Amino acid sequence: MVRYGQTVFTICIMCQLLGMNCNTPTDIVFSFTGFATRGGLTDEHKDGWGIAFFEGRGVRTFVDHQSAVESPVAELIKRYPIKSKYVIAHIRKATQGQVSLENCHPFIRECWGRYWVFAHNGDLKEFFPVLDGSFQPVGNTDSERAFCYILQQMRKRFGDNLPSLTEQAAFMREITTEIAAYGTFNMMLSHGEVLFTHCSTNLYYIVRKHPFATAALTDEDVAVDFSQVTTPDDKVAVIVTAPLTANETWTQYAAGEMLVFADGDVLDLTQEQV
Amino acid sequence: MVRYGQTVFTICIMCQLLGMNCNTPTDIVFSFTGFATRGGLTDEHKDGWGIAFFEGRGVRTFVDHQSAVESPVAELIKRYPIKSKYVIAHIRKATQGQVSLENCHPFIRECWGRYWVFAHNGDLKEFFPVLDGSFQPVGNTDSERAFCYILQQMRKRFGDNLPSLTEQAAFMREITTEIAAYGTFNMMLSHGEVLFTHCSTNLYYIVRKHPFATAALTDEDVAVDFSQVTTPDDKVAVIVTAPLTANETWTQYAAGEMLVFADGDVLDLTQEQV
Repeated sequence: MVRYGQTVFTICIMCQLLGMNCNTPTDIVFSFTGFATRGGLTDEHKDGWGIAFFEGRGVRTFVDHQSAVESPVAELIKRYPIKSKYVIAHIRKATQGQVSLENCHPFIRECWGRYWVFAHNGDLKEFFPVLDGSFQPVGNTDSERAFCYILQQMRKRFGDNLPSLTEQAAFMREITTEIAAYGTFNMMLSHGEVLFTHCSTNLYYIVRKHPFATAALTDEDVAVDFSQVTTPDDKVAVIVTAPLTANETWTQYAAGEMLVFADGDVLDLTQEQV
Repeated sequence: MVRYGQTVFTICIMCQLLGMNCNTPTDIVFSFTGFATRGGLTDEHKDGWGIAFFEGRGVRTFVDHQSAVESPVAELIKRYPIKSKYVIAHIRKATQGQVSLENCHPFIRECWGRYWVFAHNGDLKEFFPVLDGSFQPVGNTDSERAFCYILQQMRKRFGDNLPSLTEQAAFMREITTEIAAYGTFNMMLSHGEVLFTHCSTNLYYIVRKHPFATAALTDEDVAVDFSQVTTPDDKVAVIVTAPLTANETWTQYAAGEMLVFADGDVLDLTQEQV
Protein backbone atom coordinates (compact mmCIF):
# COMPACT_ATOMS: atom_id res chain seq x y z
CA MET A 1 0.00 0.00 0.00
CA VAL A 2 1.29 3.44 -0.83
CA ARG A 3 -0.14 6.34 1.14
CA TYR A 4 0.66 9.81 -0.11
CA GLY A 5 -0.90 11.73 2.79
CA GLN A 6 2.45 12.88 4.15
CA THR A 7 3.94 14.02 0.86
CA VAL A 8 3.79 17.57 -0.42
CA PHE A 9 2.33 17.52 -3.91
CA THR A 10 2.37 20.34 -6.38
CA ILE A 11 -0.89 21.67 -7.72
CA CYS A 12 -1.79 23.16 -11.02
CA ILE A 13 -4.39 25.90 -10.73
CA MET A 14 -3.36 28.06 -13.63
CA CYS A 15 -2.82 25.60 -16.44
CA GLN A 16 -4.61 25.44 -19.75
CA LEU A 17 -5.93 22.46 -21.67
CA LEU A 18 -6.46 21.80 -25.36
CA GLY A 19 -8.09 18.68 -26.76
CA MET A 20 -8.98 17.67 -30.29
CA ASN A 21 -11.03 14.81 -31.68
CA CYS A 22 -11.68 14.29 -35.40
CA ASN A 23 -13.43 11.72 -37.55
CA THR A 24 -10.38 11.59 -39.82
CA PRO A 25 -6.74 12.16 -38.82
CA THR A 26 -6.15 15.92 -38.80
CA ASP A 27 -3.24 18.12 -37.80
CA ILE A 28 -3.53 20.50 -34.87
CA VAL A 29 -1.05 23.11 -36.14
CA PHE A 30 -3.61 25.97 -36.22
CA SER A 31 -5.05 25.45 -32.73
CA PHE A 32 -1.68 24.60 -31.18
CA THR A 33 -0.17 27.79 -32.60
CA GLY A 34 -2.68 29.93 -30.70
CA PHE A 35 -2.55 27.72 -27.62
CA ALA A 36 1.27 27.66 -27.41
CA THR A 37 1.37 31.46 -27.56
CA ARG A 38 -0.26 31.47 -24.14
CA GLY A 39 2.77 29.58 -22.87
CA GLY A 40 4.74 32.70 -21.97
CA LEU A 41 3.69 35.36 -24.49
CA THR A 42 -0.01 36.29 -24.34
CA ASP A 43 -0.39 34.55 -21.01
CA GLU A 44 1.80 33.38 -18.12
CA HIS A 45 1.68 29.60 -18.51
CA LYS A 46 5.40 29.24 -18.96
CA ASP A 47 6.39 26.37 -16.66
CA GLY A 48 6.40 23.53 -19.15
CA TRP A 49 3.99 22.09 -21.64
CA GLY A 50 3.16 18.84 -23.34
CA ILE A 51 1.13 17.30 -26.13
CA ALA A 52 0.12 13.73 -26.97
CA PHE A 53 -1.07 12.47 -30.36
CA PHE A 54 -2.74 9.11 -30.79
CA GLU A 55 -1.91 7.36 -34.05
CA GLY A 56 -3.95 4.18 -33.97
CA ARG A 57 -3.00 2.50 -30.70
CA GLY A 58 0.35 4.26 -30.61
CA VAL A 59 0.97 7.59 -28.92
CA ARG A 60 3.51 10.26 -29.66
CA THR A 61 4.14 12.42 -26.61
CA PHE A 62 6.19 15.61 -26.50
CA VAL A 63 6.86 17.28 -23.16
CA ASP A 64 9.21 20.11 -22.29
CA HIS A 65 9.88 22.02 -19.10
CA GLN A 66 10.73 25.10 -21.15
CA SER A 67 7.87 27.46 -21.99
CA ALA A 68 5.89 26.60 -25.11
CA VAL A 69 7.01 29.92 -26.61
CA GLU A 70 10.73 29.18 -26.24
CA SER A 71 10.72 25.40 -26.71
CA PRO A 72 12.32 24.07 -29.93
CA VAL A 73 10.02 21.05 -29.57
CA ALA A 74 6.92 23.28 -29.62
CA GLU A 75 8.38 24.95 -32.70
CA LEU A 76 8.57 21.51 -34.35
CA ILE A 77 4.90 20.79 -33.52
CA LYS A 78 3.89 24.09 -35.14
CA ARG A 79 5.76 23.20 -38.31
CA TYR A 80 5.28 19.41 -38.54
CA PRO A 81 1.65 18.49 -39.30
CA ILE A 82 1.26 15.28 -37.30
CA LYS A 83 -2.16 13.89 -38.18
CA SER A 84 -4.20 12.38 -35.38
CA LYS A 85 -7.81 11.70 -34.37
CA TYR A 86 -7.14 12.28 -30.66
CA VAL A 87 -4.85 14.99 -29.28
CA ILE A 88 -4.44 16.30 -25.73
CA ALA A 89 -2.20 19.29 -24.94
CA HIS A 90 -1.40 21.21 -21.76
CA ILE A 91 0.56 24.29 -20.78
CA ARG A 92 1.54 24.67 -17.16
CA LYS A 93 1.81 27.50 -14.69
CA ALA A 94 3.29 25.93 -11.57
CA THR A 95 1.73 27.36 -8.44
CA GLN A 96 3.63 25.11 -6.04
CA GLY A 97 6.63 22.80 -6.34
CA GLN A 98 9.34 22.56 -8.92
CA VAL A 99 9.25 22.94 -12.69
CA SER A 100 10.42 19.54 -13.86
CA LEU A 101 9.82 17.17 -16.71
CA GLU A 102 8.06 14.53 -14.60
CA ASN A 103 5.42 17.11 -13.62
CA CYS A 104 4.56 18.06 -17.22
CA HIS A 105 1.18 16.90 -18.53
CA PRO A 106 -0.11 14.96 -20.36
CA PHE A 107 0.61 11.87 -18.28
CA ILE A 108 0.52 8.44 -19.86
CA ARG A 109 -0.02 4.91 -18.55
CA GLU A 110 -0.90 1.55 -20.09
CA CYS A 111 -4.05 -0.25 -18.96
CA TRP A 112 -5.70 -3.23 -20.72
CA GLY A 113 -3.14 -3.00 -23.51
CA ARG A 114 -4.08 0.59 -24.38
CA TYR A 115 -2.27 3.79 -23.65
CA TRP A 116 -4.29 6.24 -21.56
CA VAL A 117 -3.41 9.93 -21.77
CA PHE A 118 -4.51 12.48 -19.16
CA ALA A 119 -4.23 16.21 -18.54
CA HIS A 120 -5.77 18.35 -15.81
CA ASN A 121 -6.47 21.97 -15.02
CA GLY A 122 -7.37 22.95 -11.48
CA ASP A 123 -6.30 22.02 -7.97
CA LEU A 124 -7.12 19.10 -5.72
CA LYS A 125 -5.28 20.17 -2.57
CA GLU A 126 -6.92 17.76 -0.16
CA PHE A 127 -7.14 14.77 -2.48
CA PHE A 128 -4.92 12.01 -1.09
CA PRO A 129 -6.48 8.70 -2.14
CA VAL A 130 -5.04 5.37 -1.09
CA LEU A 131 -3.04 4.05 -4.04
CA ASP A 132 -2.39 0.31 -4.03
CA GLY A 133 0.73 0.47 -6.20
CA SER A 134 -0.79 -0.66 -9.50
CA PHE A 135 -0.44 2.90 -10.85
CA GLN A 136 1.86 5.29 -9.02
CA PRO A 137 2.80 8.92 -9.61
CA VAL A 138 6.35 9.53 -10.83
CA GLY A 139 6.24 13.28 -10.18
CA ASN A 140 4.53 15.17 -7.38
CA THR A 141 1.41 16.75 -8.86
CA ASP A 142 -2.14 16.34 -7.61
CA SER A 143 -3.03 15.74 -11.27
CA GLU A 144 -0.91 12.62 -11.73
CA ARG A 145 -2.22 11.32 -8.40
CA ALA A 146 -5.81 11.73 -9.64
CA PHE A 147 -4.93 10.00 -12.93
CA CYS A 148 -3.40 7.00 -11.12
CA TYR A 149 -6.49 6.80 -8.88
CA ILE A 150 -8.86 6.79 -11.87
CA LEU A 151 -7.00 3.91 -13.56
CA GLN A 152 -6.66 1.94 -10.34
CA GLN A 153 -10.37 2.22 -9.55
CA MET A 154 -11.35 1.44 -13.13
CA ARG A 155 -9.31 -1.74 -13.20
CA LYS A 156 -10.62 -2.73 -9.77
CA ARG A 157 -14.18 -2.22 -11.02
CA PHE A 158 -13.91 -3.98 -14.38
CA GLY A 159 -11.22 -6.62 -13.81
CA ASP A 160 -9.21 -7.98 -16.71
CA ASN A 161 -11.18 -6.64 -19.68
CA LEU A 162 -11.81 -3.21 -21.13
CA PRO A 163 -15.52 -2.52 -20.51
CA SER A 164 -17.97 -1.17 -23.12
CA LEU A 165 -17.96 2.56 -23.84
CA THR A 166 -21.26 2.94 -22.02
CA GLU A 167 -19.74 1.34 -18.92
CA GLN A 168 -16.57 3.43 -19.26
CA ALA A 169 -18.62 6.63 -19.53
CA ALA A 170 -20.79 5.75 -16.51
CA PHE A 171 -17.64 5.03 -14.51
CA MET A 172 -16.01 8.29 -15.61
CA ARG A 173 -19.09 10.30 -14.68
CA GLU A 174 -19.02 8.76 -11.21
CA ILE A 175 -15.29 9.10 -10.53
CA THR A 176 -14.93 12.62 -11.94
CA THR A 177 -17.77 13.73 -9.65
CA GLU A 178 -16.00 12.05 -6.71
CA ILE A 179 -12.65 13.71 -7.46
CA ALA A 180 -14.15 17.12 -8.33
CA ALA A 181 -15.53 17.31 -4.78
CA TYR A 182 -11.91 17.88 -3.65
CA GLY A 183 -11.33 21.01 -5.73
CA THR A 184 -11.27 22.01 -9.38
CA PHE A 185 -11.17 19.20 -11.91
CA ASN A 186 -11.23 20.30 -15.52
CA MET A 187 -9.71 17.30 -17.28
CA MET A 188 -9.22 15.37 -20.51
CA LEU A 189 -8.59 11.63 -20.76
CA SER A 190 -8.33 9.43 -23.83
CA HIS A 191 -7.28 5.94 -24.87
CA GLY A 192 -7.49 6.71 -28.56
CA GLU A 193 -11.09 5.56 -29.11
CA VAL A 194 -12.97 8.29 -27.25
CA LEU A 195 -12.06 11.49 -25.42
CA PHE A 196 -13.51 11.95 -21.94
CA THR A 197 -13.76 15.56 -20.74
CA HIS A 198 -14.96 16.90 -17.40
CA CYS A 199 -15.56 20.51 -16.43
CA SER A 200 -15.52 21.99 -12.96
CA THR A 201 -15.11 25.65 -13.91
CA ASN A 202 -13.78 26.37 -17.40
CA LEU A 203 -14.20 24.25 -20.49
CA TYR A 204 -15.51 25.15 -23.95
CA TYR A 205 -15.90 23.20 -27.17
CA ILE A 206 -16.65 23.72 -30.80
CA VAL A 207 -17.45 21.21 -33.55
CA ARG A 208 -16.18 22.39 -36.90
CA LYS A 209 -17.99 20.75 -39.82
CA HIS A 210 -19.39 21.45 -43.27
CA PRO A 211 -19.86 24.24 -44.32
CA PHE A 212 -16.43 25.19 -42.98
CA ALA A 213 -15.57 28.87 -42.51
CA THR A 214 -12.53 30.96 -41.68
CA ALA A 215 -11.33 30.98 -38.08
CA ALA A 216 -9.03 33.66 -36.66
CA LEU A 217 -6.90 33.08 -33.56
CA THR A 218 -7.27 35.51 -30.69
CA ASP A 219 -3.67 34.94 -29.49
CA GLU A 220 -1.83 35.32 -32.81
CA ASP A 221 -2.47 37.12 -36.05
CA VAL A 222 -3.28 33.90 -37.88
CA ALA A 223 -6.44 32.86 -39.72
CA VAL A 224 -7.32 29.68 -41.59
CA ASP A 225 -10.06 29.11 -44.14
CA PHE A 226 -10.97 25.54 -43.14
CA SER A 227 -13.04 25.08 -46.30
CA GLN A 228 -9.74 24.99 -48.22
CA VAL A 229 -8.18 22.23 -46.14
CA THR A 230 -11.13 19.92 -45.44
CA THR A 231 -13.62 17.68 -47.19
CA PRO A 232 -17.40 18.00 -46.60
CA ASP A 233 -17.35 14.82 -44.48
CA ASP A 234 -14.75 16.08 -41.98
CA LYS A 235 -15.73 16.82 -38.42
CA VAL A 236 -13.33 18.26 -35.87
CA ALA A 237 -14.14 18.91 -32.21
CA VAL A 238 -11.82 21.24 -30.30
CA ILE A 239 -12.07 21.52 -26.51
CA VAL A 240 -10.25 24.22 -24.50
CA THR A 241 -10.19 25.93 -21.12
CA ALA A 242 -10.52 29.32 -22.91
CA PRO A 243 -11.76 29.83 -26.49
CA LEU A 244 -9.02 30.10 -29.12
CA THR A 245 -10.95 32.14 -31.69
CA ALA A 246 -13.14 35.24 -31.43
CA ASN A 247 -15.20 34.80 -34.61
CA GLU A 248 -16.68 31.38 -33.81
CA THR A 249 -19.29 30.31 -31.27
CA TRP A 250 -17.87 28.13 -28.51
CA THR A 251 -20.19 26.17 -26.24
CA GLN A 252 -19.40 26.50 -22.56
CA TYR A 253 -19.71 23.40 -20.36
CA ALA A 254 -21.92 23.54 -17.30
CA ALA A 255 -20.17 23.06 -13.95
CA GLY A 256 -19.92 19.33 -13.29
CA GLU A 257 -20.64 18.40 -16.91
CA MET A 258 -18.88 15.44 -18.50
CA LEU A 259 -18.83 15.09 -22.29
CA VAL A 260 -17.43 12.23 -24.31
CA PHE A 261 -16.16 12.86 -27.83
CA ALA A 262 -15.81 10.38 -30.69
CA ASP A 263 -15.72 10.81 -34.48
CA GLY A 264 -15.34 14.58 -34.15
CA ASP A 265 -18.50 15.23 -32.16
CA VAL A 266 -20.15 14.80 -28.77
CA LEU A 267 -21.16 11.18 -28.26
CA ASP A 268 -24.82 10.57 -27.45
CA LEU A 269 -24.60 8.55 -24.25
CA THR A 270 -28.34 7.91 -24.13
CA GLN A 271 -27.61 5.32 -26.85
CA GLU A 272 -25.83 2.08 -25.88
CA GLN A 273 -22.14 2.26 -26.92
CA VAL A 274 -20.08 -0.88 -27.29
CA MET B 1 -5.16 -13.80 -17.27
CA VAL B 2 -4.02 -12.82 -20.73
CA ARG B 3 -2.49 -15.52 -22.85
CA TYR B 4 -0.80 -14.42 -26.05
CA GLY B 5 -0.06 -17.88 -27.41
CA GLN B 6 -2.55 -17.60 -30.25
CA THR B 7 -1.56 -14.14 -31.42
CA VAL B 8 0.88 -13.42 -34.21
CA PHE B 9 3.53 -11.07 -32.91
CA THR B 10 6.02 -9.16 -34.98
CA ILE B 11 9.69 -9.73 -34.41
CA CYS B 12 12.64 -7.44 -34.74
CA ILE B 13 15.77 -9.22 -35.92
CA MET B 14 17.43 -6.43 -37.77
CA CYS B 15 17.16 -3.48 -35.45
CA GLN B 16 19.94 -1.46 -33.92
CA LEU B 17 20.35 -0.16 -30.39
CA LEU B 18 22.17 2.83 -28.96
CA GLY B 19 22.50 3.55 -25.25
CA MET B 20 24.31 6.28 -23.35
CA ASN B 21 25.07 6.75 -19.68
CA CYS B 22 27.03 9.70 -18.29
CA ASN B 23 28.06 10.96 -14.88
CA THR B 24 26.84 14.43 -15.83
CA PRO B 25 23.98 15.31 -18.20
CA THR B 26 25.37 15.20 -21.74
CA ASP B 27 23.85 15.55 -25.17
CA ILE B 28 23.86 12.62 -27.59
CA VAL B 29 23.90 14.70 -30.79
CA PHE B 30 27.22 13.23 -32.05
CA SER B 31 26.39 9.55 -31.53
CA PHE B 32 22.76 9.94 -32.64
CA THR B 33 23.88 11.60 -35.87
CA GLY B 34 25.86 8.52 -36.86
CA PHE B 35 23.24 6.13 -35.54
CA ALA B 36 20.31 7.83 -37.32
CA THR B 37 22.17 7.65 -40.62
CA ARG B 38 21.77 3.88 -40.44
CA GLY B 39 18.02 4.43 -40.45
CA GLY B 40 17.68 4.33 -44.23
CA LEU B 41 20.94 5.74 -45.60
CA THR B 42 24.04 3.70 -44.72
CA ASP B 43 21.89 0.80 -43.57
CA GLU B 44 18.38 -0.53 -44.09
CA HIS B 45 16.79 0.12 -40.69
CA LYS B 46 14.09 2.37 -42.05
CA ASP B 47 10.88 1.13 -40.40
CA GLY B 48 10.65 3.58 -37.55
CA TRP B 49 12.88 4.69 -34.73
CA GLY B 50 12.69 6.08 -31.23
CA ILE B 51 14.75 7.65 -28.48
CA ALA B 52 14.13 8.25 -24.78
CA PHE B 53 15.99 10.72 -22.55
CA PHE B 54 15.77 10.61 -18.78
CA GLU B 55 15.84 13.99 -17.11
CA GLY B 56 15.72 13.23 -13.41
CA ARG B 57 12.68 11.03 -12.94
CA GLY B 58 11.04 12.42 -16.06
CA VAL B 59 11.42 10.94 -19.52
CA ARG B 60 11.20 12.56 -22.91
CA THR B 61 10.37 10.02 -25.59
CA PHE B 62 10.38 10.60 -29.33
CA VAL B 63 9.12 7.89 -31.66
CA ASP B 64 8.38 8.01 -35.35
CA HIS B 65 7.34 5.41 -37.87
CA GLN B 66 9.18 7.30 -40.59
CA SER B 67 12.83 6.40 -41.15
CA ALA B 68 15.33 8.21 -38.95
CA VAL B 69 16.86 9.73 -42.09
CA GLU B 70 13.59 11.30 -43.25
CA SER B 71 11.96 12.08 -39.90
CA PRO B 72 11.63 15.78 -38.96
CA VAL B 73 11.67 14.63 -35.34
CA ALA B 74 15.07 12.96 -35.80
CA GLU B 75 16.27 16.18 -37.40
CA LEU B 76 15.21 18.02 -34.24
CA ILE B 77 17.18 15.58 -32.03
CA LYS B 78 20.28 16.17 -34.16
CA ARG B 79 19.98 19.93 -33.73
CA TYR B 80 18.58 20.25 -30.18
CA PRO B 81 21.16 19.22 -27.55
CA ILE B 82 18.92 17.61 -24.91
CA LYS B 83 21.17 16.82 -21.95
CA SER B 84 20.60 13.54 -20.16
CA LYS B 85 22.44 10.96 -18.04
CA TYR B 86 20.49 8.02 -19.49
CA VAL B 87 19.48 7.68 -23.14
CA ILE B 88 18.15 4.67 -25.08
CA ALA B 89 17.61 4.80 -28.85
CA HIS B 90 16.46 2.25 -31.41
CA ILE B 91 16.06 2.05 -35.17
CA ARG B 92 13.83 -0.62 -36.57
CA LYS B 93 13.84 -2.92 -39.56
CA ALA B 94 10.52 -4.75 -39.42
CA THR B 95 10.90 -8.38 -40.45
CA GLN B 96 7.28 -9.30 -39.81
CA GLY B 97 4.10 -7.34 -39.20
CA GLN B 98 3.21 -3.75 -39.81
CA VAL B 99 5.23 -0.58 -39.45
CA SER B 100 3.25 1.36 -36.85
CA LEU B 101 3.87 3.78 -34.04
CA GLU B 102 2.88 1.35 -31.28
CA ASN B 103 5.61 -1.05 -32.44
CA CYS B 104 8.41 1.54 -32.26
CA HIS B 105 10.93 1.14 -29.45
CA PRO B 106 11.78 2.28 -26.84
CA PHE B 107 8.77 1.13 -24.85
CA ILE B 108 7.91 2.79 -21.57
CA ARG B 109 5.95 1.74 -18.48
CA GLU B 110 5.67 2.97 -14.91
CA CYS B 111 6.58 0.62 -12.05
CA TRP B 112 7.17 1.64 -8.41
CA GLY B 113 6.69 5.29 -9.33
CA ARG B 114 9.56 5.23 -11.86
CA TYR B 115 9.45 5.16 -15.61
CA TRP B 116 11.15 2.12 -17.12
CA VAL B 117 12.42 2.37 -20.69
CA PHE B 118 13.25 -0.67 -22.83
CA ALA B 119 14.57 -1.43 -26.30
CA HIS B 120 15.46 -4.76 -27.88
CA ASN B 121 17.37 -6.15 -30.82
CA GLY B 122 16.86 -9.74 -31.86
CA ASP B 123 13.97 -12.16 -32.12
CA LEU B 124 12.10 -14.24 -29.59
CA LYS B 125 9.81 -16.17 -31.90
CA GLU B 126 8.70 -18.84 -29.45
CA PHE B 127 8.48 -16.65 -26.37
CA PHE B 128 4.83 -16.50 -25.25
CA PRO B 129 4.85 -16.02 -21.48
CA VAL B 130 1.67 -15.89 -19.42
CA LEU B 131 0.94 -12.23 -18.74
CA ASP B 132 -1.37 -11.56 -15.79
CA GLY B 133 -2.57 -8.17 -17.06
CA SER B 134 -0.46 -5.94 -14.82
CA PHE B 135 1.66 -4.95 -17.83
CA GLN B 136 0.26 -5.64 -21.30
CA PRO B 137 1.63 -5.03 -24.78
CA VAL B 138 -0.09 -2.28 -26.78
CA GLY B 139 1.52 -3.27 -30.08
CA ASN B 140 2.38 -6.72 -31.39
CA THR B 141 6.14 -7.12 -31.04
CA ASP B 142 7.95 -9.89 -29.23
CA SER B 143 10.03 -7.10 -27.67
CA GLU B 144 7.17 -5.35 -25.88
CA ARG B 145 5.94 -8.76 -24.72
CA ALA B 146 9.36 -9.47 -23.16
CA PHE B 147 9.42 -6.04 -21.53
CA CYS B 148 5.98 -6.57 -19.95
CA TYR B 149 7.09 -9.98 -18.71
CA ILE B 150 10.23 -8.55 -17.07
CA LEU B 151 8.25 -5.90 -15.18
CA GLN B 152 5.52 -8.33 -14.17
CA GLN B 153 8.02 -10.85 -12.79
CA MET B 154 10.03 -8.15 -11.06
CA ARG B 155 7.01 -6.80 -9.24
CA LYS B 156 5.88 -10.30 -8.36
CA ARG B 157 9.31 -11.01 -6.90
CA PHE B 158 9.84 -7.80 -4.94
CA GLY B 159 6.32 -6.70 -4.02
CA ASP B 160 5.53 -3.07 -3.30
CA ASN B 161 9.02 -1.60 -3.04
CA LEU B 162 11.86 -1.00 -5.47
CA PRO B 163 14.63 -3.43 -4.44
CA SER B 164 18.30 -2.51 -4.02
CA LEU B 165 20.47 -2.23 -7.13
CA THR B 166 22.22 -5.46 -6.19
CA GLU B 167 18.86 -7.24 -6.05
CA GLN B 168 17.72 -5.61 -9.30
CA ALA B 169 20.92 -6.68 -11.06
CA ALA B 170 20.66 -10.27 -9.78
CA PHE B 171 17.06 -10.40 -10.98
CA MET B 172 17.96 -8.96 -14.39
CA ARG B 173 20.77 -11.48 -14.83
CA GLU B 174 18.34 -14.29 -14.12
CA ILE B 175 15.45 -13.09 -16.28
CA THR B 176 17.56 -12.04 -19.27
CA THR B 177 19.12 -15.52 -19.26
CA GLU B 178 15.63 -17.05 -19.14
CA ILE B 179 14.32 -14.91 -22.03
CA ALA B 180 17.50 -15.21 -24.13
CA ALA B 181 16.94 -18.99 -24.25
CA TYR B 182 14.03 -18.25 -26.64
CA GLY B 183 16.11 -16.46 -29.27
CA THR B 184 18.27 -13.38 -29.55
CA PHE B 185 18.02 -10.88 -26.74
CA ASN B 186 20.30 -7.88 -27.07
CA MET B 187 18.55 -5.31 -24.89
CA MET B 188 18.76 -2.10 -22.90
CA LEU B 189 16.58 -1.20 -19.92
CA SER B 190 16.75 1.81 -17.60
CA HIS B 191 14.75 3.57 -14.89
CA GLY B 192 17.04 6.58 -14.85
CA GLU B 193 19.37 5.42 -12.07
CA VAL B 194 21.21 2.60 -13.87
CA LEU B 195 21.25 1.15 -17.38
CA PHE B 196 20.90 -2.63 -17.67
CA THR B 197 22.29 -4.14 -20.88
CA HIS B 198 22.26 -7.74 -22.05
CA CYS B 199 24.01 -9.22 -25.06
CA SER B 200 23.08 -12.35 -26.96
CA THR B 201 25.02 -11.69 -30.15
CA ASN B 202 26.03 -8.08 -30.82
CA LEU B 203 26.75 -5.41 -28.25
CA TYR B 204 29.78 -3.15 -27.85
CA TYR B 205 30.63 -0.38 -25.41
CA ILE B 206 33.15 2.37 -24.90
CA VAL B 207 33.80 4.60 -21.90
CA ARG B 208 35.02 8.01 -22.94
CA LYS B 209 36.91 9.81 -20.18
CA HIS B 210 39.90 12.04 -19.56
CA PRO B 211 42.11 12.46 -21.55
CA PHE B 212 39.43 12.87 -24.24
CA ALA B 213 40.39 12.55 -27.89
CA THR B 214 38.78 13.10 -31.28
CA ALA B 215 36.21 10.58 -32.47
CA ALA B 216 35.15 10.23 -36.11
CA LEU B 217 31.86 8.64 -37.13
CA THR B 218 31.96 5.72 -39.54
CA ASP B 219 28.47 6.52 -40.95
CA GLU B 220 28.87 10.26 -41.58
CA ASP B 221 31.76 12.56 -42.28
CA VAL B 222 31.63 14.06 -38.81
CA ALA B 223 34.32 14.21 -36.11
CA VAL B 224 34.28 15.72 -32.64
CA ASP B 225 37.23 16.61 -30.42
CA PHE B 226 35.67 15.67 -27.07
CA SER B 227 38.46 17.44 -25.17
CA GLN B 228 36.91 20.72 -26.31
CA VAL B 229 33.42 19.96 -25.01
CA THR B 230 34.13 18.13 -21.73
CA THR B 231 35.67 18.63 -18.32
CA PRO B 232 38.32 16.23 -16.92
CA ASP B 233 35.74 14.73 -14.56
CA ASP B 234 33.27 13.74 -17.30
CA LYS B 235 32.66 10.08 -18.08
CA VAL B 236 30.42 8.92 -20.89
CA ALA B 237 29.59 5.30 -21.68
CA VAL B 238 28.14 4.54 -25.12
CA ILE B 239 26.69 1.11 -25.87
CA VAL B 240 25.73 -0.01 -29.40
CA THR B 241 24.93 -3.06 -31.49
CA ALA B 242 27.67 -1.99 -33.97
CA PRO B 243 30.52 0.46 -33.22
CA LEU B 244 29.87 4.04 -34.30
CA THR B 245 33.50 5.11 -34.72
CA ALA B 246 36.49 3.53 -36.41
CA ASN B 247 39.29 5.33 -34.54
CA GLU B 248 38.33 4.22 -31.02
CA THR B 249 38.53 0.85 -29.30
CA TRP B 250 35.11 -0.63 -28.55
CA THR B 251 34.79 -3.55 -26.13
CA GLN B 252 32.65 -6.39 -27.41
CA TYR B 253 30.32 -8.14 -24.95
CA ALA B 254 30.57 -11.89 -24.56
CA ALA B 255 27.47 -13.87 -25.54
CA GLY B 256 25.16 -13.96 -22.52
CA GLU B 257 26.94 -11.10 -20.78
CA MET B 258 24.95 -8.57 -18.77
CA LEU B 259 26.53 -5.24 -17.84
CA VAL B 260 25.03 -2.51 -15.67
CA PHE B 261 26.08 1.10 -16.22
CA ALA B 262 25.94 3.98 -13.77
CA ASP B 263 27.85 7.27 -13.54
CA GLY B 264 29.27 6.81 -17.03
CA ASP B 265 30.98 3.48 -16.44
CA VAL B 266 30.40 -0.23 -15.87
CA LEU B 267 29.11 -0.80 -12.35
CA ASP B 268 31.12 -3.23 -10.24
CA LEU B 269 28.47 -5.71 -9.14
CA THR B 270 30.85 -7.57 -6.83
CA GLN B 271 30.31 -4.61 -4.48
CA GLU B 272 26.97 -4.27 -2.67
CA GLN B 273 24.85 -1.57 -4.38
CA VAL B 274 21.97 0.07 -2.55
